[in-house]
Amino acid sequence: MNTPKNDLFLRALRGETVSRPPVWMMRQAGRYLPEFIALREQYDFFTRCQTPELASEITVQPIRRYGMDAAILFSDILVVPQAMDIEVEMKPGVGPWLPNPVRTAADVARVGVPDVEDRLGYVMEAIRMTLDKLDGAVPLIGFAGAPWTIFCYTVQGQGSKNFDQAKALCFTDPEAAHALLQKITDTTIAYLKAKVAAGVHAVQLFDSWGGMLSPGDYREFSWQYLQQIVDALKDLAPVIAFAKGCWFALEEMAGSGAAALGVDWTVSPQEARRLSGGKITLQGNFDPSRLLSPPQTIRAMVHEMIRGFGKDRYIANLGHGILPNIPLEHAGAFIKAVQEYEG
Amino acid sequence: MNTPKNDLFLRALRGETVSRPPVWMMRQAGRYLPEFIALREQYDFFTRCQTPELASEITVQPIRRYGMDAAILFSDILVVPQAMDIEVEMKPGVGPWLPNPVRTAADVARVGVPDVEDRLGYVMEAIRMTLDKLDGAVPLIGFAGAPWTIFCYTVQGQGSKNFDQAKALCFTDPEAAHALLQKITDTTIAYLKAKVAAGVHAVQLFDSWGGMLSPGDYREFSWQYLQQIVDALKDLAPVIAFAKGCWFALEEMAGSGAAALGVDWTVSPQEARRLSGGKITLQGNFDPSRLLSPPQTIRAMVHEMIRGFGKDRYIANLGHGILPNIPLEHAGAFIKAVQEYEG
Repeated sequence: MNTPKNDLFLRALRGETVSRPPVWMMRQAGRYLPEFIALREQYDFFTRCQTPELASEITVQPIRRYGMDAAILFSDILVVPQAMDIEVEMKPGVGPWLPNPVRTAADVARVGVPDVEDRLGYVMEAIRMTLDKLDGAVPLIGFAGAPWTIFCYTVQGQGSKNFDQAKALCFTDPEAAHALLQKITDTTIAYLKAKVAAGVHAVQLFDSWGGMLSPGDYREFSWQYLQQIVDALKDLAPVIAFAKGCWFALEEMAGSGAAALGVDWTVSPQEARRLSGGKITLQGNFDPSRLLSPPQTIRAMVHEMIRGFGKDRYIANLGHGILPNIPLEHAGAFIKAVQEYEG
Repeated sequence: MNTPKNDLFLRALRGETVSRPPVWMMRQAGRYLPEFIALREQYDFFTRCQTPELASEITVQPIRRYGMDAAILFSDILVVPQAMDIEVEMKPGVGPWLPNPVRTAADVARVGVPDVEDRLGYVMEAIRMTLDKLDGAVPLIGFAGAPWTIFCYTVQGQGSKNFDQAKALCFTDPEAAHALLQKITDTTIAYLKAKVAAGVHAVQLFDSWGGMLSPGDYREFSWQYLQQIVDALKDLAPVIAFAKGCWFALEEMAGSGAAALGVDWTVSPQEARRLSGGKITLQGNFDPSRLLSPPQTIRAMVHEMIRGFGKDRYIANLGHGILPNIPLEHAGAFIKAVQEYEG
């Protein structure tokens, strides 16, 4: 794998001293960009994911506009259950919609672990096209959902405030729940290995819903599967583990072999350092809604955030995905505030 | 005020040594009870809240069935904005619906602080009728929403995953946001003082949405208003402050003058003790979804929870409201496991 010209992001992942922290934004290839909306008006959600020319174009859009220090492949965490023959639709105004949720041990038994090159080959093709378009400028991140988060959608069948159906399966039939989590994990490991083989420089795991579990249940139903993925990937590429709402697990996650941990904005930078033991690279944690503040406020808050984390072993980012209603100038102010940071 | 025959709950709030912890469940007067559903089929939501005979009957239903150590007056946090002339509907399947959300400084200027005896007198009447029905058996808790949580609904107009509109008002027009928060706070203080005068033995503040804010924004937009309420009430009745998802604020809240702090299940009992300094009474924190586990599992987990918190300065409870789909026997197993606890 060639080192990109801008290797700040990879150096931060290795814990090297840097002149300033690297910066990117979760969902940076997203609905706040007019060039993204223009494509969205022509192609539906999964067409954009499954057409390498479109996915690669969407991936590089924010880099062209703002010059972040890393690109992240445009895709969706739910392409994994799709590849497992679990039907997934994206309903406008509703979000993910799975017409046949997996609810029972019998349902779980019918779920298979697919050949990822066969079912997700379009993602690998999108990676190769994106690398061509980036032409070595910045590194490319590949991602996957945490098995627990995929499980939540697969069992619940849609987004939810508390994913009560998903939790009900765990607490009434833990054996079936673990069988499904293992199948998702096996698929995800094969999927991420293929992404690394196709050329991504790092992978990020998104556990959006881990924070709905108690620490003990998180260990049992989420973390042990994330650990399997980290174990399988860490010698192939740096792994960033982001578990929203899981401040309570930062200590355990810091010892997992992951290169970096993502943190959300409910943890102060100082507390995140303390909870994670002070040695691992951290990524985050600007409140996405705070990008509604005036640009000069954003700038001051970003600099305070960097001082809080320290400029080394740190990747500046939001604490979750950028919101669709953020003005372009505000997103730019966030990126620029990091790029102009001087100790 | 007379001391109830069962004063375990009040003794735990005072930090006295008890033979076993007291127990009640958030939303214990709720949809898992067939006797509640029978009334719900006859009367709509706000009729139940506003009719003292119905509200008092619903309040004592769970006490009759399970003998918890405290009753909590059946009502809703949104009766406060209603009293402020902000229209609130309860849409079946949707939840709270405010047809005219407060979105601008001009909207905020039109909001008034009402005479609570005039607008919420029905609540005081429900308290008096409930005390009659309880006949001194157990204490009665009154509650209110935290100003921040009321603000979230008032600005957003409905439930939301991230209350982006409410946060947008804070971050684009903080002056208007603070003006509205202060009006809600003033109303809430008058409301809770009237409740105490009507005879409730303790009050609980619910901050359901504080956990969507960063620690700094929580202090600015939520905590300072909760502190005003605690200051105004603490010499009249013990105050329990429950801020879901706000583990990061437990230290500050422990020094507020509140008699107890509620905690949710994402904080282990040991970590909750550590974060809150080890001296204040804590309340919680069983995952409501865990009541789907078999009764023998519930029993073992409850005993582990009590050992984790310690039996003193502790009130056993869920970490949020009981879910509608919990079997009666499982709710009973939770209550009984606490009542039979022996060091």
